[in-house]
Formats: sequence, C-alpha cells, structure tokens
Amino acid sequence: MRTTCFSLKRRIAVLSETRRYDLTEKTCTIGGMSLNAARHWLSGSEEINAMLLLRRCHSLTRFGPVSIQRHPVAPAVASCAVRLRSNSGGEDQRSYRRAHSPSWRHGLAGLLAGTGTVLAYGLHKHKAEQVDTIRTPTLETTLPFPIFSQEEVTKHRSLEDGVWVTYQGGVYDITEFVAMHPGGNKIMLAAGGAIEPFWALYAVHNQEHVLEMLSEYKVGELSAEDRKKQQAVKSSDPYSSDPERHPVLHINNLKPFNAEPPPEILSDSYITPSAFFFKRNHLPVPPVDPASYQLHVEGLPRGALTLSLEDLKTKFPKHTVTATLQCAGNRRSEMNTVKQVKGLNWGIAAISNATWSGANLRDVLMAAGYGPDVAQWARHVQFEGLDHDVTGSTYGASIPLNKAVSEEGDVLLAYEMNGKELPADHGFPVRVVVPGTVGARNVKWLGKIIVSSEESSSHWQQNDYKGFSPGTDWDTVDFKSAPAIQELPIQSAITTPADGAVVDRSEEEVIVKGYAWSGGGREVVRVDVSLDGGKTWQVAPLRTSDKGQAAEPSPPPGRAWAWKLWEVTAPLPPGAQELEIVCKAVDNSYNMQPDTVPPIWNLRGVLSNAWHRVKVKIREDEEE
Amino acid sequence: MRTTCFSLKRRIAVLSETRRYDLTEKTCTIGGMSLNAARHWLSGSEEINAMLLLRRCHSLTRFGPVSIQRHPVAPAVASCAVRLRSNSGGEDQRSYRRAHSPSWRHGLAGLLAGTGTVLAYGLHKHKAEQVDTIRTPTLETTLPFPIFSQEEVTKHRSLEDGVWVTYQGGVYDITEFVAMHPGGNKIMLAAGGAIEPFWALYAVHNQEHVLEMLSEYKVGELSAEDRKKQQAVKSSDPYSSDPERHPVLHINNLKPFNAEPPPEILSDSYITPSAFFFKRNHLPVPPVDPASYQLHVEGLPRGALTLSLEDLKTKFPKHTVTATLQCAGNRRSEMNTVKQVKGLNWGIAAISNATWSGANLRDVLMAAGYGPDVAQWARHVQFEGLDHDVTGSTYGASIPLNKAVSEEGDVLLAYEMNGKELPADHGFPVRVVVPGTVGARNVKWLGKIIVSSEESSSHWQQNDYKGFSPGTDWDTVDFKSAPAIQELPIQSAITTPADGAVVDRSEEEVIVKGYAWSGGGREVVRVDVSLDGGKTWQVAPLRTSDKGQAAEPSPPPGRAWAWKLWEVTAPLPPGAQELEIVCKAVDNSYNMQPDTVPPIWNLRGVLSNAWHRVKVKIREDEEE
Repeated sequence: MRTTCFSLKRRIAVLSETRRYDLTEKTCTIGGMSLNAARHWLSGSEEINAMLLLRRCHSLTRFGPVSIQRHPVAPAVASCAVRLRSNSGGEDQRSYRRAHSPSWRHGLAGLLAGTGTVLAYGLHKHKAEQVDTIRTPTLETTLPFPIFSQEEVTKHRSLEDGVWVTYQGGVYDITEFVAMHPGGNKIMLAAGGAIEPFWALYAVHNQEHVLEMLSEYKVGELSAEDRKKQQAVKSSDPYSSDPERHPVLHINNLKPFNAEPPPEILSDSYITPSAFFFKRNHLPVPPVDPASYQLHVEGLPRGALTLSLEDLKTKFPKHTVTATLQCAGNRRSEMNTVKQVKGLNWGIAAISNATWSGANLRDVLMAAGYGPDVAQWARHVQFEGLDHDVTGSTYGASIPLNKAVSEEGDVLLAYEMNGKELPADHGFPVRVVVPGTVGARNVKWLGKIIVSSEESSSHWQQNDYKGFSPGTDWDTVDFKSAPAIQELPIQSAITTPADGAVVDRSEEEVIVKGYAWSGGGREVVRVDVSLDGGKTWQVAPLRTSDKGQAAEPSPPPGRAWAWKLWEVTAPLPPGAQELEIVCKAVDNSYNMQPDTVPPIWNLRGVLSNAWHRVKVKIREDEEE
Repeated sequence: MRTTCFSLKRRIAVLSETRRYDLTEKTCTIGGMSLNAARHWLSGSEEINAMLLLRRCHSLTRFGPVSIQRHPVAPAVASCAVRLRSNSGGEDQRSYRRAHSPSWRHGLAGLLAGTGTVLAYGLHKHKAEQVDTIRTPTLETTLPFPIFSQEEVTKHRSLEDGVWVTYQGGVYDITEFVAMHPGGNKIMLAAGGAIEPFWALYAVHNQEHVLEMLSEYKVGELSAEDRKKQQAVKSSDPYSSDPERHPVLHINNLKPFNAEPPPEILSDSYITPSAFFFKRNHLPVPPVDPASYQLHVEGLPRGALTLSLEDLKTKFPKHTVTATLQCAGNRRSEMNTVKQVKGLNWGIAAISNATWSGANLRDVLMAAGYGPDVAQWARHVQFEGLDHDVTGSTYGASIPLNKAVSEEGDVLLAYEMNGKELPADHGFPVRVVVPGTVGARNVKWLGKIIVSSEESSSHWQQNDYKGFSPGTDWDTVDFKSAPAIQELPIQSAITTPADGAVVDRSEEEVIVKGYAWSGGGREVVRVDVSLDGGKTWQVAPLRTSDKGQAAEPSPPPGRAWAWKLWEVTAPLPPGAQELEIVCKAVDNSYNMQPDTVPPIWNLRGVLSNAWHRVKVKIREDEEE
C-alpha cells in the first residue's frame, strides 16, 4: 500500500502539474512527456482508482523525481525514509501550525513577494487536513541522510529530473513544491543550486514557517567539500542600498519595498508629493550612477542606439504630463474579504498623481529609426529595468506599439517627477511613464527599450497582471487566455471618512472626499455619492487642481491622464445611526464601476474597482 | 383668490420654466428677463406664500402670456373662461384617463417620437392629482371663442409673447405646455402657425390623448378667411416614401421608423443581414437620387468641396470594416422596469453587426485640405443628414476630430453594407460609420461634413444622447453638464433563451447564446455566464465568425469594432426549478458591466448595460 501510494502519488502529482503547466504554458511537455502520454500511465479504472487512492493517501508523500529505477538505490531509500520520518513529525508540525495560526495569517498578509504568491502554506495545510481518515504511519527511521556532491545536485534542474536545491548544507528535493511556490516559476532559478541568495533577495522567505516547509523536503546532505565552498560565498542584503522612506507610509512589504500613503493624504493634494506617492518595487532599488547611465534602444533597423542621461535631456524636447499611476492591485484588500487572493494586501491608496517630465518615447524611437517599415512587423515595445535578481534577470514589461508611437499616447521617458529628478524609489534616473496604463508597465530604472513583434516574455507580462473570471482558480487558470492588463478600468474611492469612523450628530454634516480616475485617457465625467448604501445618489463636484487653484484646462479627448478629486458636504440624515457611504465614477465612455466585489473577484486580486463603501457611525449627542 | 391664483400661477410657471431653461440652456432669459429678475416679482415671504398658494391652487390654470395688460381684453377674458370650462370638464377628463389608463400606458410605451419625449400626459395627470384639496370651481361659461386672424396668431412665437398654434381652425395657446412637450424645444418650430404638418411628420401625435390635451389649451378660432387658406394647404405624409420593411421586425415606432429584430436572429449570424439590422430613424427616410447626390465638405481652408457618389467611389480607396452599431437606448426597457424613462422602449436588439465599405473619412478630409494648420483650431467633425423635418432642419451629430482623422479611427463614408449598396433605411446612398461610437453619430443619408471648433449644435448632440446620475430628474437636469455620448461602454446580452422560457428537464441541458461588444475599439476578452443569478460563473467561449467558419484575425489594439458572439451549453442543475441566467462581459481595458439597473438608471434611459438576466423555468417530466 505504501509503495503504491507513493508511486501513484508521484504520478498524480505529475498529472496535476502537467495540467497546471499545460494550462499555463500551453505546452504539454513535462520532461518531454505529453499530457496524454502521462495519462496513459494510468488509464481507465486505474486512473479512477488512483484518484481514490490519492484522496485517501494520508500525507504529503513525495518521491524522488522520475522514478525509482532512474535513481541510485541509496537516495531513493533515503527519500522514502525521510518521507516517513517527516510524516511522523507531521502531527507535531500541524499542531504547531494550529497553535500559531494567527501569526501565520499575519505572516501571510505581509508575505507576498514582488512576484506572484501562492498560498503555499495554505495548500500544505489543506492537503494535511484532507487526509485524516487514515492513520498516519508511525514508522520511524534512523537512516542517515545520503551525501550528495554539488555536481549531483546540479543535475536536478527540471520537473523531469527533479528540482533540488541546497540550504545551509542540506539538500532538498522541492519538485512537488514548485507548483505551490508563491513566486511561481521563479523558484526554478534556484534549481540545482543554493537557495540562500534568493531568500536574501526575497526577504519574505525569512519566516519560520518557510523553513518548516523546506525541512519536509530534505533528501540529503551536501558533501563537506562543497559545503565549504558554498560557505565562502557570503550572501549580502541586496536591499542595503534601498533609500530611506517616509515613516507615514503604510508598508505592505519591506523587501522589495511596497507601501502606500494614508488615504486622506491623496485627497489633500491634487499632485501627490513624491515622498507620499505609493511605492511598488518588484526587486531591490538599483543604485545607478547618472554619469555612466546608459539607455539602450534595440530592435530597430539602424541597430542599437545608446543614450546617456545627458542625451535624453538635451537631444529631445522635454515634455511634461500630469498622470495618475495605479497599481493593478489597488484595493485588493477588498477582494480578500470575499475570498483570499494572492498578492500584496493593498488598501485604496496604491494610486497617486504626479507631474512627470522627460523625452517622448515616440521621439526617441523615431531617432532610433522607427518608421512605417517597422510598423509593418512591430507590435510591442518592451522595457527592461535595471533592477534585477541574483541571476541578473531584470524586471520587464511591454506596451502595445501604437500606444508607444502615437502622438497622442504621451508616453514619456521621464527623468523628473514633480519638478525634481526622479527619486530612487520611482526609477532614478529614468523611468517610463505610460499614461492611462497600469503601473506595472511604467518600468522604473529603465535600462533597455526593445521594439518587437512580441510582448515582453517577463513573468510580470505573461503570468501575472492579468484578470480572470471569479470562477477561475489556481487549478484551472490559463494565463495565456487573458490579455496582459494595459489600460485600467474606471475607478474611484472614498479617502475620507475612513471606514468605521464616527461622526458626532452635533456636526450636522459629513464631508466626503475621494479620487476618481479611468485608464486609457478616458476622462472622469461624474462621480455619484450615496449615503444610504446606493439607494439614492448625489453628484459630487469634481476638481482638477488644488482648492482655490485654477482648474487645469480640459484635456484633449482620449488624453485625460490625471485623476479628479471630489468632495461633497452632506447633512447627516435625521434618525440615521449609521451611514453607508458609497461612491461610483463614470468616465466619458460611460463605463461605470461594478456594484459589488464578488462578481469581479479574481485569484490574483487585481482590478478591484467595485463601488467603494465605507460605514460611518453617527454618535448622538449625550443627554445632560 | 382666483385671480391671485392665476396671477401667481403665471409667475410661478415662468419661474419654473425659467429654472428649467436656465438649467437646460444656461441662459436665464425668458422674454429677456433674468432668473433673478423673475424672482424679484415674488421675493421673501411673498415667494413662499406664492408657493403655498400654488400648491393649493386647484387646476391647470393658465393665463395669457406676459400679462393681462398687454392683451386685448376679449382674448384674456375668453382665456379665463376657457380655463374654467376646461376645469369643470377636468373631472370627466380625469375619470376618462383613469378608465383608460392601461391604453394610455400602452400608448406611452409606443409614444416616443424621434426626438426626446417628456411624459407630458403624466405631468398633466400629476398636476391634476396634486390639487384635490380644494373644490373645483363649477362656473360654466357660454362665451363664444374669440376670432383671431392668422396675422394675430403669428405674433405669438415665443415664451414671452406666448406660443400659439392652430389646429383644424382652432387657436391654441400652448405656452405652458412647451416645457412639457415630449419633443422638447422642437415644438417651437410650430409656434405661430399650423401644427398639422408637424403632426404628419411625427405621427406619434395621432393619438386620442394628444388631441385631448390640446383641447385644454384652446383660446380662440381662426378667422374664416384664414381657415380657408389653410385648408388649401394639404398635409401630405412625409413617410410615404419610406421603404418596405421585413415583417419580422418588432416595431417600436412606425413614423419615424424604429424597429429591432427578434434577439435570437442576432446570435444566428455573426454578420446581421441588412433586412434584420435594427432600424433607428429620427425623421422620414429621404429619397435620394444617386445620380445627383452631392456630399459637401466644409470648414477647411481650401473652401467647400463637393463630391458626387461617383467621386467617393472612384477618387478614394475603398475600405471595408466590420463594425457593430448600437443605439444608445438599447435595453432601455430594462430601465423602464425600475422607473419610467423617456425614449423608445428598446429590447436587447437595438444592436447589430455589419460589414461596411466606403471611403475613409480621413482620406476625404485630407483631400479637402485638412492638415496640421486645421488641427490647431478644429476639434470636431459635424455631420448633417439629408433627412429633415418640415422646416428643413436636418438630423445632425458630430464626433471628436481625433477620431475622424486618426489612421486608426477607421471612420468610413460608407456606400455599401454587407457587400451591397446601402439600403434606404441605412442611409442610401452614403452614411457615416464611426466604429466604436454610439449609433446616433453614424449619420445616415449624409449631406454635409463640417470641420469645426464646435460640436454639432443639433438637438441630438446637445440635449439628447447624454447620460446622467440616477438622482437627476427633469427638473434638475442640465444637459450641458454631461458629455455627448460617443464611445459606448461594455455591453452583453442573452439572445436565447428568452426571459420566461421553459426548458424540459428531459433536455438535460440548456444552451445559452448571446452577444458582447464594447465601444472605442476595446475588444471583448471574456464573457462570464451564471445560471444561478450571479453566484457562480463560467466562462463562455467567444467567436468572431459564424460557426464552422474561420475566426477573423485578431484586430489591432484599439480597433476591435465588431462584436463577439458566445454560447455555452450547461447541464440543468439537479433540483433547480428555475434558472436565473446572467451574463456579463469584460473588455480589454477590463471594464465590466455594472451588476444592476437602478444605480445606472437615467432619465433618458440610455447606456443600459447592467448584467443581462433572463429567468427560465425547468419543467419536470410528467409522471406516468
């Protein structure tokens, strides 16, 4: 039974991974084996039996990759032994988890590295809870871990050959964990090598439960000689050169740095001061020397063009655009109240408005040789940041070519924000500003521009920042089936009062403030505000400047890049004990915000733009 | 009391009209008097008293325009007398209305001339019902109607001088009715003259309750001489040259012709056959001789350019675009279920998809002298149709200049629809096709193109086809406060099964079909379908061609002009007695449809794009 279970488990795992990768990558090859081939291992009733067995199989049973036959006996046996040992310890671990559940949840909220995150720990837990119908085997083993050379470890760099990593001298077969990894495929970068540098990069891993999970996958020890070599390579903190930040920011993740200002700051200033502008980094802030900075433009017929910062500033006209940037995950926390999603738990302030100055991307592309001939084949403009992980892999994204080259696209290679050089957190010395487009495409610390027939192949373009149906889960999601988010939908939120605020009856009125913005240059034309949960509505006056300042001139059609702020002062309804204040905005394509969150819920928690609602209590004046 | 009441009534009516016109037109001049000046008539407590008196005043009291002093005594007295007589008959009329309420409602649903319609009859009724606290005076009069010459009638052509019309020899002072007229200001065209030709044009007036309303405003008789002259002018039916239509169409209004196909026809054919393509005419179909047809292009520095049909076909490249057109009022009937709106009671089929061929508007504008110099000052391109009312006033609309001149705007001067010359109902010989833009701007029977710094001044651009907050009513609406609808928001609907359909349990599954489309060239990327009212969702496969045909190539970004059809086959949920089938679509800006109708309700019933819902009963198999 145990062997069967292991074996079936392995096969099912492959099947399950196959389906997963089939959907994600549209390739059915796991180790060169097609999905159908994998299914053939277990056909007909055998497959059903296998599924039933799997369901009853009572632990996170793993096995060496590929099959017993292809492994030296010793590791295979060791693997079994380890498995059983970790099973026996499983109860303790689960008890531990239960006891520490709140801190685990807390940890999760802050988890969320720059890349996608799966509720890995949750999946673990779920699996563990599924299997309580059969008693856990109690066989203990005292077999020592086998010793592997680094060379042996390095052979395991794929799902077919197994995915092994080392950590502090231990060897871990994490093949099965790959599908559960919060950071998605990124984990494969560590395959066959030491995991420490990645954990230093993605500091989210420095948590007890992560080590705990890893320990379950131990299959051996690294040879003493290789261990010594490894220790010579010190890991340093790649975030050590990150800039200082304003303490008022609410930090969603420290490394990489992700933070938003208190919402009321947003409506206090039409232009968000740079220090308060929300920060959304995917990697450490790269230190860039402006004197030696180079921007490479590639993919055009004249060959690569390299520009210095000075070139950008002096060879191209300087354009200034006021544009609002919004993270795709803004207001994700509201989706989490429906059902847990993966991603940073942003409130309503992952959006800000600034004035950006720089060269027009269009002008730079023209200078680099863009013309009608290129328009024949090119479809996208890719950007690469100078921010990178330990393998040198950089942040990347792309936008459609027509946005990049349109005279009305207003895409900037910005070197100024709010009239000063870009702050480090916002892409010093040069970033892309793609007005009307999701923050993720506004690549910071810009290093390279590539005109291409293809979208960026980066994780963030292909397997992140996409929207799905509420019925789509991590087992069924096919990232190829959805377009990369570019223009964002209509959005608005109430910055003040805060949810749960209390207003004294004696104040007689409530002042409600907020922001409204739409992607694609669509101008916000109306904001409706309700104090009774959406039964009745009033229209909020909009403004495009600070109070008392002259309004900005109306933007040309399709080029309304900046948000509008709004404010209503409404008398407290007599008799009401609580207000449910709601706002919803309308843009000039008359798109409206959806009423509620559940029907737009999606597994990644992006595009959260339902009506924003805050409840406010009215405190009656105390009787004498 | 009566005199006071009359006098106050007149003043209040002016005030109320002033406010109305102030909001609508941003001018405060009623008869050269500013709103504040009018208020000064009744200031402070006098105004409040007047309001109270008005509220208690017990009839639709009218008075001759301006003041008694400015009228000959006879008409003024007659006017009073008529008023009283009609008051005394008021009860009968109200009883009649109540008794005929259903037919009235039915009449209203079909009312709706080409221009905007106010619930005039409803306003009458409302006023009548407000005043039942004081007994109706019963004074009868036998005074004969005074006799007026046509010359005298013709003097009354403004709100200041009074608005008089003649009908079958009667003279009517309709000053007070102007603000209630379903067709808005258009009624002023008839001021001072005979109303028959207009009623022939807008055949909606040929209803009993319209005559009934008119009779209340009678103030005199036309002189025998002028009456004879008038009778010599026969009114002819301007719709006599309208084309034959397919009898399957559901007619919402006959003159002008407005009709939609049965919804299931839409999803049966990716390209809607022209005969079934929804028809939305604002005026009679103008008969146009293609040999003498002329298109005038004005507003450009080289002076006017005149093109024949042959010119259009031979001097410019022929472009073909598949584009969906949708009426702003599509799905208005769903808004009517929330609260009555004004407008044709469209179902879900005021949308269709066709292939259009013609010259690019851009090419024609270039040929006419458009260039960067024009771009400096021009902002809009106006279109005038050859369809006109009895005064010669034509249908008109405009679009933003950037849409018109963009290479990616794909605006056509189309002379073919689905591979054949345009049918008469669709604009023969030439119409504008503005892909991604509300039907109303796709001007048919195109006569003139004007490049301008201003939008079209037509009623349909300025005081119609705009969206408002659900809290905005006809007393508070300011048409200047909302932008003219251009791009439409994301839309989808279920074409089959129909609401109320019955499915036999033995069928085991239900096939759900529909369409999805978004304005502005935004591609529909997903349609979610629910069988349980929106609790759970599945993704519907989309198609861009007829079944079995190769899919159209994916459109360039921002140029997805054609709808997508979708279909799901879903097993009948066990135990369910009724399904609430819901669909909602998402475009590539990730805009979603709002959940429900009430929060997007607007007084004109446009932009109705909430989730579409149909209820289907499941009939259990009969027991033997």
